[in-house]
Amino acid sequence: MASQSKAQETPGRRGLEERKQLIMEIYNSLRSADIASIEFEGPEIAVYIRNPKFIVENENVVKDLARKLRKRIVVRTHPKSRKSMEYTIKFIRENVPPDVGIVDIQFDDVLGEVRVIAEKPGKLMGRGKVFRNLVLAETGWRLEVYRKPLLQSGLLDSVLRHLQRHAEERRRALRDIGERIFRDTLIGTRHVRVVGLGSFGEVGRSAILVDTGESKVLLDAGLSPSGYGPDSYPYYWSPEFRVDELDAVVISHAHLDHVGTLPLLFKYGFRGPVYATPPTRDIMIIVLRDLINLMRKAQGEPPFEPRDVEKALTRLIPVNYNTVTDVAPDIKMTFINAGHILGSSMVHLHIGQGLYNILYTADFKFYRIKNDRSTRLLPPAEYSFQRVEALIMEATYGSKETQPRAEAEEELINLVNKVYKRGGKLLIPVMAVGRGQEILVVLNEALRSGKIPEIPIYVDGMVYEVTAVYTNYPELLVKPIRDRILKQGENPFEGPTTVYVTDHYKRDEAMYSDKPAIILSTSGMMNGGPIVEYFKYLADDPRNALAFVSYQAPGTLGRRLQSGEREIELEMDGGIRRIKVNMEIVSIEGFTGHSTRGELLSFLRRLNPKPRNIVLNHGEPSAIAALAHTVKTGWSKLGFESPPIIEAPENLEGVRLYPRNLKMKLALQHS
Amino acid sequence: MASQSKAQETPGRRGLEERKQLIMEIYNSLRSADIASIEFEGPEIAVYIRNPKFIVENENVVKDLARKLRKRIVVRTHPKSRKSMEYTIKFIRENVPPDVGIVDIQFDDVLGEVRVIAEKPGKLMGRGKVFRNLVLAETGWRLEVYRKPLLQSGLLDSVLRHLQRHAEERRRALRDIGERIFRDTLIGTRHVRVVGLGSFGEVGRSAILVDTGESKVLLDAGLSPSGYGPDSYPYYWSPEFRVDELDAVVISHAHLDHVGTLPLLFKYGFRGPVYATPPTRDIMIIVLRDLINLMRKAQGEPPFEPRDVEKALTRLIPVNYNTVTDVAPDIKMTFINAGHILGSSMVHLHIGQGLYNILYTADFKFYRIKNDRSTRLLPPAEYSFQRVEALIMEATYGSKETQPRAEAEEELINLVNKVYKRGGKLLIPVMAVGRGQEILVVLNEALRSGKIPEIPIYVDGMVYEVTAVYTNYPELLVKPIRDRILKQGENPFEGPTTVYVTDHYKRDEAMYSDKPAIILSTSGMMNGGPIVEYFKYLADDPRNALAFVSYQAPGTLGRRLQSGEREIELEMDGGIRRIKVNMEIVSIEGFTGHSTRGELLSFLRRLNPKPRNIVLNHGEPSAIAALAHTVKTGWSKLGFESPPIIEAPENLEGVRLYPRNLKMKLALQHS
Repeated sequence: MASQSKAQETPGRRGLEERKQLIMEIYNSLRSADIASIEFEGPEIAVYIRNPKFIVENENVVKDLARKLRKRIVVRTHPKSRKSMEYTIKFIRENVPPDVGIVDIQFDDVLGEVRVIAEKPGKLMGRGKVFRNLVLAETGWRLEVYRKPLLQSGLLDSVLRHLQRHAEERRRALRDIGERIFRDTLIGTRHVRVVGLGSFGEVGRSAILVDTGESKVLLDAGLSPSGYGPDSYPYYWSPEFRVDELDAVVISHAHLDHVGTLPLLFKYGFRGPVYATPPTRDIMIIVLRDLINLMRKAQGEPPFEPRDVEKALTRLIPVNYNTVTDVAPDIKMTFINAGHILGSSMVHLHIGQGLYNILYTADFKFYRIKNDRSTRLLPPAEYSFQRVEALIMEATYGSKETQPRAEAEEELINLVNKVYKRGGKLLIPVMAVGRGQEILVVLNEALRSGKIPEIPIYVDGMVYEVTAVYTNYPELLVKPIRDRILKQGENPFEGPTTVYVTDHYKRDEAMYSDKPAIILSTSGMMNGGPIVEYFKYLADDPRNALAFVSYQAPGTLGRRLQSGEREIELEMDGGIRRIKVNMEIVSIEGFTGHSTRGELLSFLRRLNPKPRNIVLNHGEPSAIAALAHTVKTGWSKLGFESPPIIEAPENLEGVRLYPRNLKMKLALQHS
Repeated sequence: MASQSKAQETPGRRGLEERKQLIMEIYNSLRSADIASIEFEGPEIAVYIRNPKFIVENENVVKDLARKLRKRIVVRTHPKSRKSMEYTIKFIRENVPPDVGIVDIQFDDVLGEVRVIAEKPGKLMGRGKVFRNLVLAETGWRLEVYRKPLLQSGLLDSVLRHLQRHAEERRRALRDIGERIFRDTLIGTRHVRVVGLGSFGEVGRSAILVDTGESKVLLDAGLSPSGYGPDSYPYYWSPEFRVDELDAVVISHAHLDHVGTLPLLFKYGFRGPVYATPPTRDIMIIVLRDLINLMRKAQGEPPFEPRDVEKALTRLIPVNYNTVTDVAPDIKMTFINAGHILGSSMVHLHIGQGLYNILYTADFKFYRIKNDRSTRLLPPAEYSFQRVEALIMEATYGSKETQPRAEAEEELINLVNKVYKRGGKLLIPVMAVGRGQEILVVLNEALRSGKIPEIPIYVDGMVYEVTAVYTNYPELLVKPIRDRILKQGENPFEGPTTVYVTDHYKRDEAMYSDKPAIILSTSGMMNGGPIVEYFKYLADDPRNALAFVSYQAPGTLGRRLQSGEREIELEMDGGIRRIKVNMEIVSIEGFTGHSTRGELLSFLRRLNPKPRNIVLNHGEPSAIAALAHTVKTGWSKLGFESPPIIEAPENLEGVRLYPRNLKMKLALQHS
């Protein structure tokens, strides 16, 4: 009797044969480059050549080949074909116009890159390509030019230097990763399944396991804002999750609830690649280092150490927006702008060579540029794709509409003026990443245009370091902000009254001076950080005010205050003190970096093509249920041609997306 | 900051401490029995004593202790305190009344049992207890008396003898299993999750993984009737499933779609316990051996071998109905009569020392005894329990009502008469287990009462062997049948015209004789077995008839014929032949061993207490969707006080049952 063929064909199967053919094609096409070796380095195929002039003269040959093979191909000179660093530095200095203002020249042995940090890289931009080719042909090094940061982050610099010191380890890691990505497949794509390890039916500890039978990818590795202990980790002990079987970790953005347990994976033996955009990588370094400090203060021994963060960095593969990247034999991944914070991404997974496509929005901000009259930092999330069969969407604000952003700005400005007039201090808890920068831009803009008086703005916590990263990526910010950085050389995050709190004196000044002031400080949900110290001291005085400008998760001090608690017990002066809260407490929701309910629906309306499956996560149960209801009943108004299947698993629940019995699921949904 | 305590308490946690206390209590209570050792043997605590008289005199002490400790305690004599086998045989023969008719005396070294097989065990029953105590006190062996089977199964006997030969291996296995069950817990019960590995959204390859964080139990290990290849196995390659992490396999009943891949688990390294009722064990041996033969015929190399079946048997722990048994540190399991086939069980899991209770119906037959006027073999499924929070229920006949059983019997009898009159043969595909015996009883009853003429009834395939097992367990059959066996010593499965096809001559006679006949043969869905040979020969003649008396799964020859295909290509005489089907084809659904739609709803109505979660499986998508709809809208009519959460996962999907966000799930269900 013939066995029935079911849904277990292996269309995603590919093997050594394909790999051999790839290598043959590359050899044939780039023969005259004098190929020294071809290596699978992470998701890229690196072709090491002995004749650097070839790249200069045949740039399009490589591009065409990459397009044809659908692979990321990079051509590098063989280390032995590169000139010495001394020679290269001398050559660059001698040939760069003096007004470019070279600040530093760094080398990346792994990538064969020489990085020039300059005051005015624009001066080089016009003739950039010619000069880049000149450097390459002459020295064998590939030139990259970077702008000198407007702000300097010591922490970031030190970690990047650490990485350079460990070039050889990184190279080895990249090759291991490459071998795994381009491996001979064992099973092929059998199915597409998504298991919620965290952030399902809740906000926080985002972690989603995508399992195709052949490979496994973890989307995000977050930490719940409710604490630092194991209860705040995703369900990593779930039996389907094993670090040794994981092909890749993809980080959507650098908020702790999406990246806070990444080092833990390395502590427990993960040695695979981590994919993130370059700004996400940079911010991640800062917030994870800070997290270790916060944990030390809160509970003594943190569950991981700085070296685990460094291990993660050694295996981090930066990927720019809209660059298709192989992350497993049967999964291609693309980051797409999510508009949430700098570097934040939606993640598109193309599975099984055309079988199935998932779009994971992670945290995203969708707004209509036309209607917007507010001070924005980031462009809105993208909504048009080649293929999307399943959408995994956040539902943080799924149940209630929030005020428009322009109104929120007005409300904040009015609050500043009110508190100023009564001689009080305005305390604003902000996440180090995103809201801090947004509020700084709003306040400095209001100062410039005279909408608020000359009031000192103290910025405490990790906001400074992260702002430094923001100024490093002007090309990712909206045009008005970008232009101020690139054309006017201004820092939009700094005004005449901005004070970065870098020592105890400045903190004392912010806290104890009798003058009105605005204090921005971390953490954003008041579950630690200097904000708590400010709060202890300022809570008592009714002239002061506390303004929440972001989502407050259940279990955090922020949420308790927001929900009306006015007596709080906190550690103070070595004991537990009951603090009476007399300060004004205000919630301004319109600043959210998340899509509001209207924006979520508007995103679904614009989204193209329409998915057949919608999985809702990253929301409190009521928010998820409300959004699900609206989509279930209103799909036709949202432009769907047929009702999508809407599901909202809990953590530990798994949803199979492909192959799927659509009919049964629909019948169940509508019965 | 204090970490928030979430749903991850460990109420099911227990440890070595508890184990020590258990042992202390036993020592203290049974001191005067002269304890040699206390062993954890599978789910039982075995107390080896040197003074067998103690048990005779203190039977209640042991019972009370077991009740108090909530453990299965068995007291055995220490091997050195047992008399020789020769002496024991002599002692028994000398002291048993001669009319008992001893047929055989067997010893089980592992259990310290002496088994007397007798023609008339009833003669001993009255004074059974006294005699048992006499034997125990005198020889140290525990006496068990069995009835000589009405039919002899050579296969079953040979395998049971094999087990006796491997007593030492079994003893070691039992101790390993015991150590694992009574281990120091690592994590405790963190959650209750159910993952569908097979039979979700389909009929066949039943396999359900129950995962509590601390332990993992597999409910059933079936094979899809659609074939014998890997596509017919459950999703054992799913990453959350690993044989080395499995605490136990629980087999609900001995149909291949529930037990057909059990040997495969052993082939791939499983060495834990398999729990089944004694009749399920016996039938399992027969059907799995037969399966290997069928696979050999169908595809050459079977995926497992007889020794894998034997490994499973070595680790099989028989458990009677209604006996609570520890199967993992945090799971107690109870088998409850399911009324489907002999030995068939619903499985009740009591998890985390009171945290949560699951009832898995598996395949079950629920009917109201009062209204029933048909010839039944088995009592209906139970419906009353101490606690049930989640129900996993089959939905095979969820969408359409089937005819009442009494009508089905009438229809079959009419069909026999019709075919007899036109001189044809009536071919009935039956599963070796269940339907075969049911139909035999109906036909022989009709013969006895003259409702059908004296027509030969040929019984081919494994039906004979399985019927032998049925006659071994009269106490599990309904009273009228039981009485005929026990009181009248009759075989209700055999009539004056019954012919067991045991060789080619008889098969030729059944097939080629020109006289009317009834032929019952396996397999029940015509996906192999002698039925296909009969069909090839008989299909052509319009005087013949083919009567389906059970569910036919998609992809089987049975289903194709049932759906109207009348030209079938089959291997015949060494080539592929196109067979024209001219015989009459009839489907009589009322014989089903599954609950009909009405019976499913009636079961839910009677079920006490009412579960909060209902998970539907073992049904085609349309059947599941229809049943879900009825329960979703009609819960109040079914006696639920609040709407239950109804879910129907697909294979590879996981549902978390505890802890659970009931509100969100309900809101989603009813949005």
